[in-house]
Amino acid sequence: MPKDTVTLRDVADAAGVHPGTASRALNEETKALVRPETIERVLAAAVSLGYKPNLLARSFKTRRTNSVGIVIPDINNPLFPPMVRGVEDRLFQDGYVALLANTENDPDRQRRIFEGMVDRRVDGLVLATARRQDIGVEELSEMGIPIVLFNRVVEDGRLASVSADDAIGVRMVVEHLRKLGHERIGHVAGPQSLSTGYARYNGFVSAMAETGAVVDPQDVVFAETFSIAEGERCAAALLGNADRPSAIFAGNDMLALGCYSVAERAGLACPEDLSIVGFNDMPFIDRVNPPLTTVRIPHYELGLRAAELLIARLRYPDTPVEVVQLAPELVVRGSTAPVRDRVVV
Amino acid sequence: MPKDTVTLRDVADAAGVHPGTASRALNEETKALVRPETIERVLAAAVSLGYKPNLLARSFKTRRTNSVGIVIPDINNPLFPPMVRGVEDRLFQDGYVALLANTENDPDRQRRIFEGMVDRRVDGLVLATARRQDIGVEELSEMGIPIVLFNRVVEDGRLASVSADDAIGVRMVVEHLRKLGHERIGHVAGPQSLSTGYARYNGFVSAMAETGAVVDPQDVVFAETFSIAEGERCAAALLGNADRPSAIFAGNDMLALGCYSVAERAGLACPEDLSIVGFNDMPFIDRVNPPLTTVRIPHYELGLRAAELLIARLRYPDTPVEVVQLAPELVVRGSTAPVRDRVVV
Repeated sequence: MPKDTVTLRDVADAAGVHPGTASRALNEETKALVRPETIERVLAAAVSLGYKPNLLARSFKTRRTNSVGIVIPDINNPLFPPMVRGVEDRLFQDGYVALLANTENDPDRQRRIFEGMVDRRVDGLVLATARRQDIGVEELSEMGIPIVLFNRVVEDGRLASVSADDAIGVRMVVEHLRKLGHERIGHVAGPQSLSTGYARYNGFVSAMAETGAVVDPQDVVFAETFSIAEGERCAAALLGNADRPSAIFAGNDMLALGCYSVAERAGLACPEDLSIVGFNDMPFIDRVNPPLTTVRIPHYELGLRAAELLIARLRYPDTPVEVVQLAPELVVRGSTAPVRDRVVV
Repeated sequence: MPKDTVTLRDVADAAGVHPGTASRALNEETKALVRPETIERVLAAAVSLGYKPNLLARSFKTRRTNSVGIVIPDINNPLFPPMVRGVEDRLFQDGYVALLANTENDPDRQRRIFEGMVDRRVDGLVLATARRQDIGVEELSEMGIPIVLFNRVVEDGRLASVSADDAIGVRMVVEHLRKLGHERIGHVAGPQSLSTGYARYNGFVSAMAETGAVVDPQDVVFAETFSIAEGERCAAALLGNADRPSAIFAGNDMLALGCYSVAERAGLACPEDLSIVGFNDMPFIDRVNPPLTTVRIPHYELGLRAAELLIARLRYPDTPVEVVQLAPELVVRGSTAPVRDRVVV
């Protein structure tokens, strides 16, 4: 299917520059920031591709489309629907149409979604896809598109965001397990390229130290994605030896579900033989067997607040960048129990 | 927030006509179908609102945006994500950007989403929101937008669709329960305004008759939405009397989860005291306690096929309307068991 809309990215690619640079080169107000030979290259590419250089700039500055893009990284994770509902409900209240898209954690797909949103001239973006270092999001932001992050944040904190306070949540988990007598606690850590995986891992190490427990490096395994399959792979590594932790803190509920499967296959009863804790309190996790002890984050409110920050920025573009952290709470269910005295056979 | 994009709907509302009529009135090729005084009224409304009458017509006929709208009725139902992934993956393969939206079963929200999609000039729509009688969808179709329905269908069958064969699925459920000795089977029926709720209810009545069982009208309760809360309300009505069915067939898995809650509160063990069956085999339903016996429909394939039908229509607009029904299968898990001999106290 031929592509008949030339995007800024096409121009940037043809000129061999970043889209942010191409955008600045094509904008009268910002082109002083770009080297003359680069401007020339970008203009030549724009002309040869038939790009309308003023279209974007005009749409962001003057014409509102009353639409906002919401981008999530994984539609199969039940965590996101209630957050998206919060975003949608708040946007809807103010007359916006929400366009939702799902990257499947696929960089190629994400790039095309971002381009598609820009082509559709959304007024702003609410993103749950941020990586700690995120060039794609930075480029969008440089193009002048108002952006609010939710759930995950970027490292440098220059973007508005609403997320849960991971450190507090993890500390509650560790204190809960320590009170139950667990000394050796394993961690199935989330991807370290994401703020959630990274903050929970660091929170775990700190909280363990605070309670006087030592983390054995072999008791931490890093997942590549927040998925059940990765939870299974990591739990298998943690539980492979007879000498194993008596509890596992999983970086999120999907990873915890992977731990459930592996424990069951290994003949370990949860919580009698192994306590398991998750993070997020995602929908339906209270109905699994056993119901999961986890950290509840306020999904709906998180989305609602993200939409509010965006609406404020759309109304008053000079609104200062706000970084909101919401308080989590520990929900104790059936997957955690006091440590069993080990019988050495 | 003032609305600064005038939609066809605005014009139609101002002129007091259906959007389909307004569309025809504004199109040179179709205005012969509309009465002259109506055309005049529509034109007057368009002029006074500042509507650009040729924009839409041109976009549908000539300009492709390479974007397709996917609209689902309930983002909190885990059934839809794998279907959406199927749609997205297939669209992505052919270079389309997918714009997803969620109506929350709210007609007002649906209307605005449809308008938003039209304003964004999507090339086509893949809809999981259809009601058996659906004026909103008919209007879109009359405007010339290629549409494919998935999961749910409309009554008259003039639109392309991909859904599961509900009748076959329900017959397998009834035969399974009858073989386990259940004579009195209750049904928590889905909304009768939706093809899924309607076909499963009718399938239930037919299959019961085929196996020589009589359906007591008091053993069928109709849910207003496919939600856990409605499942609870209906199950409470079914299980309120000591004289109750020994098994419940729920119109989908969300309703079945509502039945679980009520059974538990009533002190009825599932499956020992009460067998429960769902429909859809939605994600995570194999992990609830007990794992649910249900009808598996091929979620991902269903979405994939719907996208394929749309792509075919976008390539060859004269492609005949195809109505595809995919075969379901019964998945027997822990929520069904042989009927217990009743002990009369």
